[in-house]
Amino acid sequence: MARCDELARVTATPGTIERVYLSPEHARVNRLAAEWMREAGMVAWQDAAGNQVGRIDSDFAGEAPALLLGSHLDTVLDAGRFDGIVGVLMALEVVRMLRVPGDAGNRPRVRLPFALEVVAFSDEEGTRFGKALLGSSALAGAWDDTWWSLQDADGTTLREAFLDFGLDPGRIGEAARRPGELVGYLEAHIEQGPELDDRGEPLAVVSSIASARRFQLIVEGEASHAGGTPYDRRRDALLGASEAALAIERVCRAEHHVIGTVGQLEAFPGAVNIVPGEARLSLDLRGEFDGERDRVWRGIERELDGIMGRRGLRWQAREVHRAPAVFCAPLLQDVVREGILSALPPGADEPATIFSRAGHDGMAIGAIADVGMLFLRNPDGISHHPDEAVSAADVALGIRALAEAVLQLAADR
Amino acid sequence: MARCDELARVTATPGTIERVYLSPEHARVNRLAAEWMREAGMVAWQDAAGNQVGRIDSDFAGEAPALLLGSHLDTVLDAGRFDGIVGVLMALEVVRMLRVPGDAGNRPRVRLPFALEVVAFSDEEGTRFGKALLGSSALAGAWDDTWWSLQDADGTTLREAFLDFGLDPGRIGEAARRPGELVGYLEAHIEQGPELDDRGEPLAVVSSIASARRFQLIVEGEASHAGGTPYDRRRDALLGASEAALAIERVCRAEHHVIGTVGQLEAFPGAVNIVPGEARLSLDLRGEFDGERDRVWRGIERELDGIMGRRGLRWQAREVHRAPAVFCAPLLQDVVREGILSALPPGADEPATIFSRAGHDGMAIGAIADVGMLFLRNPDGISHHPDEAVSAADVALGIRALAEAVLQLAADR
Repeated sequence: MARCDELARVTATPGTIERVYLSPEHARVNRLAAEWMREAGMVAWQDAAGNQVGRIDSDFAGEAPALLLGSHLDTVLDAGRFDGIVGVLMALEVVRMLRVPGDAGNRPRVRLPFALEVVAFSDEEGTRFGKALLGSSALAGAWDDTWWSLQDADGTTLREAFLDFGLDPGRIGEAARRPGELVGYLEAHIEQGPELDDRGEPLAVVSSIASARRFQLIVEGEASHAGGTPYDRRRDALLGASEAALAIERVCRAEHHVIGTVGQLEAFPGAVNIVPGEARLSLDLRGEFDGERDRVWRGIERELDGIMGRRGLRWQAREVHRAPAVFCAPLLQDVVREGILSALPPGADEPATIFSRAGHDGMAIGAIADVGMLFLRNPDGISHHPDEAVSAADVALGIRALAEAVLQLAADR
Repeated sequence: MARCDELARVTATPGTIERVYLSPEHARVNRLAAEWMREAGMVAWQDAAGNQVGRIDSDFAGEAPALLLGSHLDTVLDAGRFDGIVGVLMALEVVRMLRVPGDAGNRPRVRLPFALEVVAFSDEEGTRFGKALLGSSALAGAWDDTWWSLQDADGTTLREAFLDFGLDPGRIGEAARRPGELVGYLEAHIEQGPELDDRGEPLAVVSSIASARRFQLIVEGEASHAGGTPYDRRRDALLGASEAALAIERVCRAEHHVIGTVGQLEAFPGAVNIVPGEARLSLDLRGEFDGERDRVWRGIERELDGIMGRRGLRWQAREVHRAPAVFCAPLLQDVVREGILSALPPGADEPATIFSRAGHDGMAIGAIADVGMLFLRNPDGISHHPDEAVSAADVALGIRALAEAVLQLAADR
């Protein structure tokens, strides 16, 4: 918990938490993570995508495949201090518990048939370039060269940001892992939802990670004078965008397992006395299954065609992110479940198994390795917000559960 | 027209026209206007509010009250090149025609019983500080000391901007005129609406200027994670703001003479994957009569109470501008009408008399002097937009009409 506080102080905007991809804050938390990795007996390096990685070899063969543990250290704007971060720090604790002799209650150093790696992904949130999972996509060998021209709010391209950060875009392929190198990927994360809190339970097994798509929607009308333009001559892009935001809510609410969010909306030129000629809004769409998600998007498209047609506006959508639903591997679900049970008091109920509406790095890693996840209770389900919380007791239980899951996995091999 | 082009090149954002109060561009256009005032035989100075003023005394007494002619040189963002500007340049032409001997077709220098002043107001649009009519309010002696703490988008206060520009806030009172100093105020302006274009007429007499109020509306909910927060736990400020924008349109459309515009809308924190916890929108409300305007505002308040209540949101309105309807003086309406008739071909119909939904500097000047206005045809009613237009032929007619109005006023005295 002290390390969560220490990382929270590394921010681009004092008084809030803000660490975006390839920023000076990103470099600073990587240096801290590297230091902690070395303290836990690991060899540490920053990979070609800015992910911070630590490794401790198997006792049996230095070349043995690795079980990857971790999460991400980047944040949204005005973030909480646990989303991603606590998963990286828990992974470090698990390594220390299992592999540093004499530490953690005189527990002996455990011999494992696989290497352990801890990864602190560099960009899960997509805050800076609008494209999520950049760090884990690089590690999964799924980097797309069209991303180099993505721009941040200041017009800096991803390629320029790489160079400014001291990374070589030409070496991005070196971050990629081959499937044979990995035993699997295990991640602990706060739930980012209220279900565990509502149930009064500390930990859950994750069954799958949401299917997601993100769009930038652009509505075009005609800017005109607020006083001089009668309503029947207006082509007000902001009113079209407002109707669109409400239509997205309406279409998604009619579904049970799809949720849509408009997090950004801006009007141009953006003066008090000008009817907006253009509006841009973001759409984040998540579903349990890809087909459901895509059916809802088609419903939204139909609604928007109707709205914009009635208002004399044009609209277009640019897809900026698409990720299929990722199902957690049955074996990894089992070891996480056994780990949680062993951490809970004897006689405790089976832990809940939960579907994650939030996206996670496992969505990218799923392409090259089995993925397992453990959720921590998140009071009131508040995340991506300064009030985001997790209790030290739950984190301690989670570390024990995760360590036990690693031991179970070792025993299974 | 060439001077309109020359002023259009003075911009903060190349490729668009943008000149806001107390900016380097404001200083540059004041220097140009001062040069042109001196060319027209006037004494020129910048007043304590940054208005550029030129004066040529009466032939009968240097202390005689002045007829004030003019308009403003500041602009909205991504503006056209005529709104305000053409009125200042037409006033300069009128002074040159009447007062520079031998010029303008060997017309003799006209002797007038009043001084002529041309004023280029420094802030009519309110683009920078959200408060309109700052320049003309100073000249009308209606400066409000609470304005000093208004901030622009960068957090610079109006007081700091004064100092940066080289003006002394402590001397703002020196810009104020006493009613006895002024014969009246005459302004030419593009219509900013399609009525003259629809009628196929070049010029109109203005009967009154809209009553206006401007508000900043703040909607507060709770930021939360886009994936993890089910709809029934969301308190999405942006959806509340979207409903508000549509309710404003609905309430105003139900009225004939009140028009409301939301020109700005922004969501906070403004990330693709966060349910917005706060949204801010602007409201510009204009009516022919104050009572009508205020009744519509109360209707909007009731709608917003309902919307925000249903969504579990809070909202508040901060009024940033309020101006009563200003009626043009009958005498000045008459001389403008006679001026237009004398500029039109013999036998032309009486010019239209139009109510202005757009605000003008006369709203402030009306507190200390009679106000008269002349409108120029504005093709398609497009203004506050790069496509804003006016024809050279209509401007030439307008200059003749305005000069004739000045002569009629002189004859009446």
